[in-house]
Amino acid sequence: MIIDCHGHYTTAPKALEEWRNRQIAGIKDPSARPRVSELSMSDDDIRQTIEANQLKLMKQRGSDVTIFSPRASFMAHHIGDFEVSSTWAAICNELCYRVSQLFPRHFVPAAMLPQSPGVDPRTCIPELTKCVEQYGNVAINLNPDPSGGHWKEPPLTDRWWYPIYEKMVEYDIPAMIHVSTSCNACFHTTGAHYINADTTAVMQLIQGDLFKDFPTLRFIVPHGGGAAPYHWGRYRGLAQELKKPLLTEHLLNNVYFDTCVYHQPGIDLLARVIPVANVLFASEMIGAVRGVDPETGHNFDDTKRYIDALKLSAEDKAMIYEGNARRVYPRLDATLEKQGR
Amino acid sequence: MIIDCHGHYTTAPKALEEWRNRQIAGIKDPSARPRVSELSMSDDDIRQTIEANQLKLMKQRGSDVTIFSPRASFMAHHIGDFEVSSTWAAICNELCYRVSQLFPRHFVPAAMLPQSPGVDPRTCIPELTKCVEQYGNVAINLNPDPSGGHWKEPPLTDRWWYPIYEKMVEYDIPAMIHVSTSCNACFHTTGAHYINADTTAVMQLIQGDLFKDFPTLRFIVPHGGGAAPYHWGRYRGLAQELKKPLLTEHLLNNVYFDTCVYHQPGIDLLARVIPVANVLFASEMIGAVRGVDPETGHNFDDTKRYIDALKLSAEDKAMIYEGNARRVYPRLDATLEKQGR
Repeated sequence: MIIDCHGHYTTAPKALEEWRNRQIAGIKDPSARPRVSELSMSDDDIRQTIEANQLKLMKQRGSDVTIFSPRASFMAHHIGDFEVSSTWAAICNELCYRVSQLFPRHFVPAAMLPQSPGVDPRTCIPELTKCVEQYGNVAINLNPDPSGGHWKEPPLTDRWWYPIYEKMVEYDIPAMIHVSTSCNACFHTTGAHYINADTTAVMQLIQGDLFKDFPTLRFIVPHGGGAAPYHWGRYRGLAQELKKPLLTEHLLNNVYFDTCVYHQPGIDLLARVIPVANVLFASEMIGAVRGVDPETGHNFDDTKRYIDALKLSAEDKAMIYEGNARRVYPRLDATLEKQGR
Repeated sequence: MIIDCHGHYTTAPKALEEWRNRQIAGIKDPSARPRVSELSMSDDDIRQTIEANQLKLMKQRGSDVTIFSPRASFMAHHIGDFEVSSTWAAICNELCYRVSQLFPRHFVPAAMLPQSPGVDPRTCIPELTKCVEQYGNVAINLNPDPSGGHWKEPPLTDRWWYPIYEKMVEYDIPAMIHVSTSCNACFHTTGAHYINADTTAVMQLIQGDLFKDFPTLRFIVPHGGGAAPYHWGRYRGLAQELKKPLLTEHLLNNVYFDTCVYHQPGIDLLARVIPVANVLFASEMIGAVRGVDPETGHNFDDTKRYIDALKLSAEDKAMIYEGNARRVYPRLDATLEKQGR
């Protein structure tokens, strides 16, 4: 089985975006504020956007199950206050839940949180709880920078974030560290902010000792870990200067990297530097890079081709494709087992 | 000949740091403000700090010439106003000039600029001019984020920066894009801010069309280009979505990457992905990562070993070690030619 641990509902019916635009307009003009009940999408609408897009490509490319969360760039936690984020997160999470109900063998949901700049992360717990207990979510996406490129929250190792971690440990769910749209003109969203956030998170975790407090806490750092594997020598060296244990102990019992790296040399490096047990198959399809690579004739984000081409044993590839995901996301494993898979 | 294009005077006599601390104290308390004349370092002081450190390691490791600029993390453009930065830059640049006079066959200076957050870059021109015309500087370091991790300046492609670029073109000198200390708790200086800045700069240059306005402008992106080579497929794909030319045309006539990547797999990827003509030897020694890699028994920042181990022709290695630097830094080439090298 091939599990893609990183998919977003980037192709949701247009009505969603229209409702969100009205919600944003309503921040300044309460008369324009839409009610949640004004947003209506039929099962057929949803079915169509999935069948014509993600599911079609999954079948073409040969993956079976996608861990599916709301569109990352649309989380936009910097917009409005907690109430705005809260309403928006509830809508988006319900939508991914519906996708998982319509296609239970192909999509398993992961939740976005109703984060808002400067607001205590504790406020995210009710949505998190609902998503796990009622919607069958197997993970969350945690935004280390709800300000959208201004980085005003404390580092991920700060106690500020602990209420989230306590809940993650209780439910035994991992978090993917994933920022949203950049509203800082210096940072292109998918070309700079996403990758920088990954790199930043890895370095925060190296500086701190978070996993001493939470030995079972697990993070997936997406986009192949940002710059971290390419600069693994630098990170090993910095950890050493900071008198931390080897990264294999200090980080790799708790931190995993996905394979959203859109060319063969990058994936080759990832597999060479990071132990197989810490690499999880992912494509983030349909996402930031949708075109065809003129050098290969295949889509940049068809990452399965790069894994297939790795000089690894079938056993190792099975870990990257399935085994690691089932271990890192125990609730995914339980969902699949219930399906007899 | 082996030219290291990325060295900073990280080992300057203690008196420099003491003076700087007094200067910083003087921002709030003018009675504590030191005069420039109160800072005195003898030629012997300077000679000793170089001979016992950079020069010793250059001889051990086998490099001949270092392009030498003030300590990057000490630039700290976010501290004080333009006058503070201006005085500090003049002191640091004079010091690197003195190093180059004491060791003319080993060190060639590159200048820091007296940048200050929100201050027109035009104000940096007098220092730049002095450094090129009187001190024989062959390049500058340009900080894309003088705020120190808050990223409040416009992107590098903005006309805001054009006065600097006009002067660079006039003198035919390149700039290394190099940030300084992070004063944002989210970003570790050398583990996150440096690498993120490199990645950010590359993406800014992809988004814009700066080299249409300045076809001969040249940038060195240090630390192996941040995350860019590892994610080269992503960047090629994003350029394609933005309807830009291939990166070989859009970027690589003007942008170069150094080899400050502190392990073999990273350097292997760099050399595989980026054309040899765009890779310049560098170590940033003595810098962020000073320890010995327990996996190799050699210093992490002894990058010459990684280049030596590349499966490249002697001709290609000579380009990385010398030819590219002489082409990208014409004033370095002229300096060396005057020395009969």
